[in-house]
Amino acid sequence: MTLLLTHRDVERATDIKTQIDRIEQGLLEEARDAVELPPRLNLATTSGFFRVMPAVMRDSGLMGYKVFHGSVQHGVRYLIAVYDEKDGRLLSLMDAAYLTATRTGATTGVATKYMAPPEARTVGVIGSGLEATTNLQAVCAVRPIEAGKVFSPTQANREDFAARMREQLGIALSAVTTPEEAVSGVDIVVVATNTTGVGDLIAYRGKWMETGSHVNSIGSTGLQLREIDAETFQNAERIVVDSRVQMEGESGDLKAAMAAGTYDRAKVTELKEVVAGRAPGRSDSDEITLFKSVGTAIQDVAAGFAVYKEAVRQGLGQDVGEFLELKTF
Amino acid sequence: MTLLLTHRDVERATDIKTQIDRIEQGLLEEARDAVELPPRLNLATTSGFFRVMPAVMRDSGLMGYKVFHGSVQHGVRYLIAVYDEKDGRLLSLMDAAYLTATRTGATTGVATKYMAPPEARTVGVIGSGLEATTNLQAVCAVRPIEAGKVFSPTQANREDFAARMREQLGIALSAVTTPEEAVSGVDIVVVATNTTGVGDLIAYRGKWMETGSHVNSIGSTGLQLREIDAETFQNAERIVVDSRVQMEGESGDLKAAMAAGTYDRAKVTELKEVVAGRAPGRSDSDEITLFKSVGTAIQDVAAGFAVYKEAVRQGLGQDVGEFLELKTF
Repeated sequence: MTLLLTHRDVERATDIKTQIDRIEQGLLEEARDAVELPPRLNLATTSGFFRVMPAVMRDSGLMGYKVFHGSVQHGVRYLIAVYDEKDGRLLSLMDAAYLTATRTGATTGVATKYMAPPEARTVGVIGSGLEATTNLQAVCAVRPIEAGKVFSPTQANREDFAARMREQLGIALSAVTTPEEAVSGVDIVVVATNTTGVGDLIAYRGKWMETGSHVNSIGSTGLQLREIDAETFQNAERIVVDSRVQMEGESGDLKAAMAAGTYDRAKVTELKEVVAGRAPGRSDSDEITLFKSVGTAIQDVAAGFAVYKEAVRQGLGQDVGEFLELKTF
Repeated sequence: MTLLLTHRDVERATDIKTQIDRIEQGLLEEARDAVELPPRLNLATTSGFFRVMPAVMRDSGLMGYKVFHGSVQHGVRYLIAVYDEKDGRLLSLMDAAYLTATRTGATTGVATKYMAPPEARTVGVIGSGLEATTNLQAVCAVRPIEAGKVFSPTQANREDFAARMREQLGIALSAVTTPEEAVSGVDIVVVATNTTGVGDLIAYRGKWMETGSHVNSIGSTGLQLREIDAETFQNAERIVVDSRVQMEGESGDLKAAMAAGTYDRAKVTELKEVVAGRAPGRSDSDEITLFKSVGTAIQDVAAGFAVYKEAVRQGLGQDVGEFLELKTF
């Protein structure tokens, strides 16, 4: 059977801890070279883009792809397809808007687990959207967070976010009026925005970095987007990315840092290396660390499978049968 | 709405002439540089492959992809997704096993229309499978074919094919006992096999080529497959391919011809150039011409859209609603 999952089904079948585990396993698999993860394809459309990201995970026995397409005018849509890698069955097709946010959060969770100070108790969040939510959830899943601050330009948004997250996560979270205040004196920073860098619009600045803190930045996944400034790359003593190739080719933040000469490849490691124990996530308690993510199809397929399994368990979704017929060569 | 189409739905919604028209339009669009057609991605799986082929057609207002995956042991599956390129709606997801055969046939139809002698009346077919069927259908759609011969190694297969095609196409088609006999004295040749080249297994040999004839070869779409020998490339005076990059990278026939030194790039044109009138398909009535195809996502999306339109008209398929939710950035 192939299971179709709507946005609502995916929401109901999502558990951030399960996704953190699945993605960590996926990264180990990537480190073992048991995956195929080609650079994703970005095709231009009349008003936007059509992005296709496939992956094969041989040890997990999974394969699939995400298609993310749209435009600023018409809006965007996300689809993830998950297949059984061994026998080729199409297990599920799912709306992946929510999943994209949770898998991004879950990946931050994995990075935070390996990179943040073990005793981290406080968090500063810049952004109040879905990605800010899932990233904060994931940080709280891997560290005993007790308190935090959130900044978002619109007062109602940051206050709603703080109230919602206090309730949901049981942490003392307050809304603050500047980004600098949000990230001042905290152990872990989460930057999760859609800022464009037009004018002086940068969400986070390297001069705010503090000794021993860990920063996660998950925006700027396109060349037109900016989120953290070039100085951030300079002040970070260790930088971990989810995909070096994708990062260097597609992130506006990286492009700017490379242009400014603040991006030192010698400081940069891929997350899979850290998870596999081949590189440290943090060398000592004073180190300033940065995790920067653009997203990979491994994250999508791993998290998509977790959602599919849970959806089956809960009886969610629409079973459209063996819709793809098996043929012989 | 998104329309799910099964193998049977696709069969019922297929018309080879419509597909020939659609693919011809797609090739014109390709010639105008109004498409995005990146090299397809081939990912290795434990026992086979996972192939992802996306395309954007801006003038047609379409985009989509084919995913073709499987293995010799477990069998293969084909999926085509067709989207509205302007507003991003997912129009249809369809089983594309049958469609792959018909779009390959329809592409041969376009090539034959431009390359075969205008007065062609006879055809020789090597192969008796689904691709042989669709290719013969397409040839008969663009030329006033009256008679032909078919060879396939298994007697029952070639005789069944001849009987079925006589009935369906109203031509005098006879089964013959050697490939050479099948292609001797005919105006147009169709080679549509899955031969591997193991031992001496080549379906067609260049020494059989005759003055003024046109040969279509649509097998050998992987490096492990062989269909026509290296001499065929030498004896062909004009060679047209659907995708030069894909052909040179993925066809076992091309690899062998390049190794033998019989593949002369100066003789090779892409089909879009011929359809756009920028290169002739045939220079005179004596010329020996060869069309060789590996398949492109433009063919898939163009033909997929034709099937979708006809399925809507006939009320076929399963409407799964607006299964992908529209989001804003």
